[in-house]
Amino acid sequence: MSSEFEVLEMLRRKFSLEKIGDDCAVLPKDSETDLVITADMLVEDIDFRLEWAKPEFIGHKALAVSLSDIAAMGADPTWAMLSIAVPEHLWDTKFIEKFYRGWHKLAKIHKVELVGGDISRSPDNLVIDSIVAGEVPKGAAVLRSTAKPGDGIFVTGELGGAAAGLKILDDWGWYNPDLPREKLQLVEKQLKPIPHVSIGKLLRKNALVSAMIDLSDGLSSDIHHLCRSSGVGAKIYVRKLPVDANLTAVIKSPAERLELALNGGEDFELLFTAPKKYFSSLESTLFYRIGEITPNVGTIELMVRGETRILPPRGYRHF
Amino acid sequence: MSSEFEVLEMLRRKFSLEKIGDDCAVLPKDSETDLVITADMLVEDIDFRLEWAKPEFIGHKALAVSLSDIAAMGADPTWAMLSIAVPEHLWDTKFIEKFYRGWHKLAKIHKVELVGGDISRSPDNLVIDSIVAGEVPKGAAVLRSTAKPGDGIFVTGELGGAAAGLKILDDWGWYNPDLPREKLQLVEKQLKPIPHVSIGKLLRKNALVSAMIDLSDGLSSDIHHLCRSSGVGAKIYVRKLPVDANLTAVIKSPAERLELALNGGEDFELLFTAPKKYFSSLESTLFYRIGEITPNVGTIELMVRGETRILPPRGYRHF
Repeated sequence: MSSEFEVLEMLRRKFSLEKIGDDCAVLPKDSETDLVITADMLVEDIDFRLEWAKPEFIGHKALAVSLSDIAAMGADPTWAMLSIAVPEHLWDTKFIEKFYRGWHKLAKIHKVELVGGDISRSPDNLVIDSIVAGEVPKGAAVLRSTAKPGDGIFVTGELGGAAAGLKILDDWGWYNPDLPREKLQLVEKQLKPIPHVSIGKLLRKNALVSAMIDLSDGLSSDIHHLCRSSGVGAKIYVRKLPVDANLTAVIKSPAERLELALNGGEDFELLFTAPKKYFSSLESTLFYRIGEITPNVGTIELMVRGETRILPPRGYRHF
Repeated sequence: MSSEFEVLEMLRRKFSLEKIGDDCAVLPKDSETDLVITADMLVEDIDFRLEWAKPEFIGHKALAVSLSDIAAMGADPTWAMLSIAVPEHLWDTKFIEKFYRGWHKLAKIHKVELVGGDISRSPDNLVIDSIVAGEVPKGAAVLRSTAKPGDGIFVTGELGGAAAGLKILDDWGWYNPDLPREKLQLVEKQLKPIPHVSIGKLLRKNALVSAMIDLSDGLSSDIHHLCRSSGVGAKIYVRKLPVDANLTAVIKSPAERLELALNGGEDFELLFTAPKKYFSSLESTLFYRIGEITPNVGTIELMVRGETRILPPRGYRHF
């Protein structure tokens, strides 16, 4: 069965959709500014479960995933639209209001104005389409397609936490605020991800990065997306991967922890590449250098204790 | 049970959403141009049925409903985004490709470029979110909120056809190309509406109109939306209503035909108001003058053979 990615590739080819393929589309706004824009569809029982999350969390996440795409372009979010199809059993409850409250709280932090959208009834599941637009100086948007061999590969934070949170929710069946601290942090990493808007902007402003993508599908898939767009390959060092520190508290097997860090989706950290001259300043701040870009087009090598393995794109965002 | 409109009103009030309430949001683009943008969510079994329509028709309609909103602002469509949640049983069929083909054919006519969107799986129904942006000279977008007492009320075409088409589809159960001509035209009015982009632009360019909205929910509801936004009332003359000529072939009762013209949704004609000095030139071209704006805030009077009745907002877009 074909993946979302393959269907998109088919459409892009058949209908020559040139603007599609990065975290956001980049469109000219005025003589000094480009508009970047993204849409993310979240479907109940594919992307989230109602019983797991408070409505406020779902509203937060709907905006956060799109803000993360804006962050990956190094852009400043400005306005948003929100379309929701709401099932009958939630229609006259406080659900919609609480959902918007969660959305709105995050929007205020990032000064995003809600300018439009649609509300419809749904015969079955809750479906949300989150659209966010941002601005970036003309020509300065950071793309996926501009990584060069020799560049270092960096991530902005720890990996695997959101996927571990998903496992905990799946075992537990609901969001339990009385879980031990480590588990709660993992669950909140899944339910209330933090989009790295300021970090994305900072990296773009200081012209430190050569390419960027957000980690929504999981490292193994997202590094493939970036490499395919850039026409390059990559080498990832397992010993350098910042596996989420909370994972040790809940997952005994080191192999399983590594699996989550490599393939677990929805951490919404930024994955970026940078030329050698910036390595030390980037490492001395917040960022983890996990590998390097190679000229082996489309091949992702995983370095495990001196051995080289091939890393297939096994990321998952949907459960 | 509260309506979509009431939920939207609640959110607008609670979260002070000033940009929401017209066919499109109007946003500054550059020193000479405004950006207008709209989102429409179409849900299977609420807005359409798969068994009624070829995938191409659903793609066409998804774009057409949003283009109609752009038309109602007098704007020029420029780019679009499309998010779809696709049920398992359609995923590996040709459905998605055919759907996009219908979308793309209409997009080419209006020179609309697809710049982004999302594709997701859906555990149940097909859900589509259609986003279209357009451009209009700064400050020139035609709003709902600027009708004045004394203005005439006009529609760009015949009414009730799309709703009659819906009835035929409901009786027949599928799109049958061998139906008699009148019925087929009604069915196609429902399945393949024509957005009046050129007409909207023409009216705006010649500065003939004082306010405009597209007839998506049905005349009785949409005239209420326009009057509420403008802080006015309206008087509609039944004898002047252009009831779709094909209705006589399929609906015997004149009262039922009138009911469809007043409350039937999805004709996607434009409803606009214009000052008296333009009446003759507007009537001598294509447009039907069906009534006039009054100072009776929020009251819509229906004039039937010299009698005055109150017209409640009974439009329906969803079946």
